[in-house]
Amino acid sequence: MDTLSLEPIGMVVDSPWQEPRQAPRQGPARGAESVIEIDPAWAPALEGLEPGRDLWVLGYFHCARQAQIRVRPRGDPRRPLTGLFNTRTPHRPCPVSLTLVRLLERRGGRLRVRGLELVSGTPILDIKPYVPGIDRPRKENS
Amino acid sequence: MDTLSLEPIGMVVDSPWQEPRQAPRQGPARGAESVIEIDPAWAPALEGLEPGRDLWVLGYFHCARQAQIRVRPRGDPRRPLTGLFNTRTPHRPCPVSLTLVRLLERRGGRLRVRGLELVSGTPILDIKPYVPGIDRPRKENS
Repeated sequence: MDTLSLEPIGMVVDSPWQEPRQAPRQGPARGAESVIEIDPAWAPALEGLEPGRDLWVLGYFHCARQAQIRVRPRGDPRRPLTGLFNTRTPHRPCPVSLTLVRLLERRGGRLRVRGLELVSGTPILDIKPYVPGIDRPRKENS
Repeated sequence: MDTLSLEPIGMVVDSPWQEPRQAPRQGPARGAESVIEIDPAWAPALEGLEPGRDLWVLGYFHCARQAQIRVRPRGDPRRPLTGLFNTRTPHRPCPVSLTLVRLLERRGGRLRVRGLELVSGTPILDIKPYVPGIDRPRKENS
């Protein structure tokens, strides 16, 4: 299939973690505060996003290693191997991250958010609003 | 910022919609069945994903038009303009889709899923398991 090209819309400019080996898994990072800076060209496209909103942040794991077909969930050596698509490992064929964050503050193109697990310098691909009606699983019987 | 390159892992090979103008919004598509075909090289990486699981499908809106800074939510002309990142429009700077689906069947690299709004031919970038502990908003007071 054809290779796709994407131009990031911004970058994580301030996070508690500077290197991948320091970065936590998603769960433990839910209390962490980070700052994302959106390029000036796209900053006006943040209009309407106010503090308190829940947002999806899609980033690019720029430090991802080569993807392995099978991995151990949470990197736990006691767990059996499973397919990488059955895990949230950052080491994926298309290393796109997906994190639900809470918007704390917006100043121009600067977003202060809570819950991001990405290291400083991570390119950001997209910001989407969390929409309960489509982002929660349907009940089994529906 | 540097342009990023991504190699899709598969494609939507069968959906109820063949052209973008037919494609529904995400909510109304939640009952639709589609088939995703993952490349043979990555099919073994689906191991562990069984019917009944909720999955995130990340695709590439290959028919997206040029992104506009401000759009009308749901394309509704009665709604006021808002920033594009405050909407789920497919016409985005990085046109990456995000859809929560239910896995109905897996045969090798073929995934039959319910809830995808993508047209046939859409490149697929990633499949991730839905994890309630990180994919649901935290309570306001937490």
